[in-house]
Amino acid sequence: MFLHTLFILSLLLGSSHALDFCVADLSLPPGPAGYPCKKSASVTVNDFVFSGLAAAGNTTNIIKAAVTPGFDAQFPGVNGLGLSMARLDMAVDGVIPLHTHPGGSEILVVTQGTICAGFISSFENTVYVKQLNKGDVMVFPQGLLHFQINSGDGVATAFVTFSSPNPGLQITTFALFKNDLPTETVNAVTFLDVAQIKKLKGVLGGTN
Amino acid sequence: MFLHTLFILSLLLGSSHALDFCVADLSLPPGPAGYPCKKSASVTVNDFVFSGLAAAGNTTNIIKAAVTPGFDAQFPGVNGLGLSMARLDMAVDGVIPLHTHPGGSEILVVTQGTICAGFISSFENTVYVKQLNKGDVMVFPQGLLHFQINSGDGVATAFVTFSSPNPGLQITTFALFKNDLPTETVNAVTFLDVAQIKKLKGVLGGTN
Amino acid sequence: MFLHTLFILSLLLGSSHALDFCVADLSLPPGPAGYPCKKSASVTVNDFVFSGLAAAGNTTNIIKAAVTPGFDAQFPGVNGLGLSMARLDMAVDGVIPLHTHPGGSEILVVTQGTICAGFISSFENTVYVKQLNKGDVMVFPQGLLHFQINSGDGVATAFVTFSSPNPGLQITTFALFKNDLPTETVNAVTFLDVAQIKKLKGVLGGTN
Amino acid sequence: MFLHTLFILSLLLGSSHALDFCVADLSLPPGPAGYPCKKSASVTVNDFVFSGLAAAGNTTNIIKAAVTPGFDAQFPGVNGLGLSMARLDMAVDGVIPLHTHPGGSEILVVTQGTICAGFISSFENTVYVKQLNKGDVMVFPQGLLHFQINSGDGVATAFVTFSSPNPGLQITTFALFKNDLPTETVNAVTFLDVAQIKKLKGVLGGTN
Amino acid sequence: MFLHTLFILSLLLGSSHALDFCVADLSLPPGPAGYPCKKSASVTVNDFVFSGLAAAGNTTNIIKAAVTPGFDAQFPGVNGLGLSMARLDMAVDGVIPLHTHPGGSEILVVTQGTICAGFISSFENTVYVKQLNKGDVMVFPQGLLHFQINSGDGVATAFVTFSSPNPGLQITTFALFKNDLPTETVNAVTFLDVAQIKKLKGVLGGTN
Amino acid sequence: MFLHTLFILSLLLGSSHALDFCVADLSLPPGPAGYPCKKSASVTVNDFVFSGLAAAGNTTNIIKAAVTPGFDAQFPGVNGLGLSMARLDMAVDGVIPLHTHPGGSEILVVTQGTICAGFISSFENTVYVKQLNKGDVMVFPQGLLHFQINSGDGVATAFVTFSSPNPGLQITTFALFKNDLPTETVNAVTFLDVAQIKKLKGVLGGTN
Repeated sequence: MFLHTLFILSLLLGSSHALDFCVADLSLPPGPAGYPCKKSASVTVNDFVFSGLAAAGNTTNIIKAAVTPGFDAQFPGVNGLGLSMARLDMAVDGVIPLHTHPGGSEILVVTQGTICAGFISSFENTVYVKQLNKGDVMVFPQGLLHFQINSGDGVATAFVTFSSPNPGLQITTFALFKNDLPTETVNAVTFLDVAQIKKLKGVLGGTN
Repeated sequence: MFLHTLFILSLLLGSSHALDFCVADLSLPPGPAGYPCKKSASVTVNDFVFSGLAAAGNTTNIIKAAVTPGFDAQFPGVNGLGLSMARLDMAVDGVIPLHTHPGGSEILVVTQGTICAGFISSFENTVYVKQLNKGDVMVFPQGLLHFQINSGDGVATAFVTFSSPNPGLQITTFALFKNDLPTETVNAVTFLDVAQIKKLKGVLGGTN
Repeated sequence: MFLHTLFILSLLLGSSHALDFCVADLSLPPGPAGYPCKKSASVTVNDFVFSGLAAAGNTTNIIKAAVTPGFDAQFPGVNGLGLSMARLDMAVDGVIPLHTHPGGSEILVVTQGTICAGFISSFENTVYVKQLNKGDVMVFPQGLLHFQINSGDGVATAFVTFSSPNPGLQITTFALFKNDLPTETVNAVTFLDVAQIKKLKGVLGGTN
Repeated sequence: MFLHTLFILSLLLGSSHALDFCVADLSLPPGPAGYPCKKSASVTVNDFVFSGLAAAGNTTNIIKAAVTPGFDAQFPGVNGLGLSMARLDMAVDGVIPLHTHPGGSEILVVTQGTICAGFISSFENTVYVKQLNKGDVMVFPQGLLHFQINSGDGVATAFVTFSSPNPGLQITTFALFKNDLPTETVNAVTFLDVAQIKKLKGVLGGTN
Repeated sequence: MFLHTLFILSLLLGSSHALDFCVADLSLPPGPAGYPCKKSASVTVNDFVFSGLAAAGNTTNIIKAAVTPGFDAQFPGVNGLGLSMARLDMAVDGVIPLHTHPGGSEILVVTQGTICAGFISSFENTVYVKQLNKGDVMVFPQGLLHFQINSGDGVATAFVTFSSPNPGLQITTFALFKNDLPTETVNAVTFLDVAQIKKLKGVLGGTN
Repeated sequence: MFLHTLFILSLLLGSSHALDFCVADLSLPPGPAGYPCKKSASVTVNDFVFSGLAAAGNTTNIIKAAVTPGFDAQFPGVNGLGLSMARLDMAVDGVIPLHTHPGGSEILVVTQGTICAGFISSFENTVYVKQLNKGDVMVFPQGLLHFQINSGDGVATAFVTFSSPNPGLQITTFALFKNDLPTETVNAVTFLDVAQIKKLKGVLGGTN
């Protein structure tokens, strides 16, 4: 008789997608709130687990650092849950250049080494910067310019979590120099010298 | 008898703050959702009307432009309503430098002159830029770098509305050079040359 | 080597729709949060620019006024951004009749002429009304009845922005008389006289 | 030892207000998100229980109906929870006049009698109306004009729930006639005849 | 001429889905914000009315109670509106077992009989419990464990409303024992005895 | 002249609290959206940095585990930003008992050891469980029952982030047995045996 009740409840509650969660169906176009949900029957625990942050990113590059994302496109289980992660790896002298996340706040925990991290407020351009050691946590409010620098003698690693499944990442130097925005426009809107602009466009492959 | 009913309804519904709106009481500290509400009895139509955008801002300055805000601190009626405004005035060759609004999207309508406006996506650093004439409207998605340049022969004016009563305004060049962020840090996180950084810190009053 | 890094970042971040923005794909059905997003590759700057408000609407009609919308259906770039616009044109004696926007608050800036604008609070039916001149701004809280009347000697124009890409527009007189809601029902729920109801149903093409 | 753990957890988690809920402290001014929270120590079960809807409202009035609210001002436990309730009582021929709730959607369940309920869409002024019997449920989307009429032979009762702790209630006829909005303004923005307006202002105590 | 205006307004405003509401198209996959909207033309008043709560649920079962849902899957008109309902029927000694709704708060009104209802705060595990009579209302904050027990001599009935169109329902005892979570795991994470776990797994059909 | 402009901008934008962020003023009562903001002048970088998770929690207790929170009450910089963190330490055989977070989703990264983690869906009570190694990430959807067990041979550590500055923590076994909820009520709403209930109430200090 009890099992009978359970059956009725299942029948009534179970006839649709379960909206406890909404694992992204990446084959369909997303909307403003995220991707459509996969059918419950095809969801597995692997949708909620992501191993792509377990290995260090390749830091053999000019910034001596790597950002490995675990956003909705890589980790479909976070769709609709207001969270995503990334891993930061920095070799000695590595730097995560100045950037913003247009769509979310960030919280960072250092798991190896020492990191000098900071953000700039839009209020009087105040800088909030601090040396972070292993286990220290820092929060970067939504949309503000921030950076991380390996300030120790060895490798530094951090895990960052965002308040959005797809927070975006706008690196200021790339936004200025790694595209076809004309040099004169960059000059007009930043006051940077033309020579400086042309030099960095050259390095980054920007045109115009 | 009818009036009796009305009295009862008023009694029941009217015994608290009216939450049709929540005019900011600027004398109290705000919270994440905005300022506490003024008492209904002291709210007047002037809380919902702002005349501070009627006159052009002073453009006799190096950017030949002015931004006049009508955010919650100036216009308490917008508190809690998810909207605020500002006025842009640009003399010939005037520029609103590259900036972001950390807390909201922006929609702009040109009311005088011709403006070249653009924003930069965080996706492949794509630039979306267009010449806008009187009556044209452009939308700038939340948190992305954007700019406006007077591209006509005369004065240009625009009204902008934000999807927040307090969207913030972070001008990239001020954030980089108009504070005490050390030159070497700016260099490390932007790849700009030290000489360029020192030059602009000099112009803008930055230190270190 | 640096370009190598950039390539890796692009690979990781660029493999999906860019969610910096979500330009409406109007060919697909919307959901509660708006329309699905167009693919990044087919987005152009024209999705973010709307010229449909540049020309005055036709005011040769009984209200001597026109409302021209720039909502998501006309202006797909606003999808998901919490903003949309409209233009109000009023000939001499023109009126935007009493109405609400069920889905958003409104902020209005007068760009020509003089407008008498007001809204009615649900708290004690208090009326907030004011004469607005060129450059004045007024905010109308979500869902409340409001109106605009050309109170000057010439044409009046205003641009309005809403806190929603699709705020809706419910004109009270049309809602009451321009449909098949039976006369006796209108009478019962408004206390208006039957003769008055029949007269306005006649003017507006309502039935029953 | 186990108790020791519990003590530590309590110490860490218990040193602030519990934000499982936020019972309204009605003595402090609310903000856009609701009232400040009472201290945990002074919260009791009675904050979460409301008996004010148990008795029928007094329907001895011209509308032969009563609305009894259980909003945050009456029922402080709903603060911050996105819900509130009201009770509708209608004597024979009783009517809840045409109205909107600016701040929320409504769901209604009939518990006695028969009710004719309807709402008007802002899209083509379409009317959605239906006879509801005991146990029937109807939903009224946010901000749209709606009404309820006792369409049976006896008393009718319904409980309504709103998607907001303070949804507001704007009765159209009161908003038009029960205040000091000038007759000529009402005429201009509604097309109602001056005589009709003056008549209803007289009944409802409106002026001007 | 007036009709001409109306035609223009309809043309401009009516060319898309009406977003006054978004009736669920249950044939399409939902997203984090709910289901895609049915086309306006196929929406009828029956989408906004649900009669499935009019009859008592079958309480001939071991809990002597029934929960009948009116969530989005059963009642497509609630999609996107932040509300849904359910009916509780309890025979003598009937019980709605301890459960949570992961996605929303709940408000309950007793329409027949007497119910002992309670919830447990996460702050110091405080219990808030009260005897509710006909017409009494109780609110259960989001995500907290709660229960309802028929504490009277006859049948008890209640209508509950949720602050979500799909609040979910997680019955603790079913979550623990009516699945394949290994007995040793249940033991480890609850401290319940193995014999107790095996006994209830047996009753409920759980395995491992 | 340029500095003059900057001065004007500062004057206009700087006259209120900066709402780039809203560091909690823990001396004032919170509201539904969080705590009131500290004045900008008294905010320092230390408000955005939290070192309380750097050291392992004390696991010398019956669960051989510790949860150290970095919620708004401990870490005022997260107020209003939709994020907070905690640290999990588990000795050999350590367990974080079955629990929910009523107010947010959780994302976990293993930084040491091996953890068996799982959650239970409200849809058919499906269990999603997996062995997680160092660097693996798992997401737990809002409000669902979940647990973590040290499944390795040594100490295990994880950092968890929540989609709320104050997600709450309701441990099922404590909610059932560590308070004054009467044994007969626990029995009625869980089907657990009276002897089992009394035994665990004894261990945990529950009464009745």
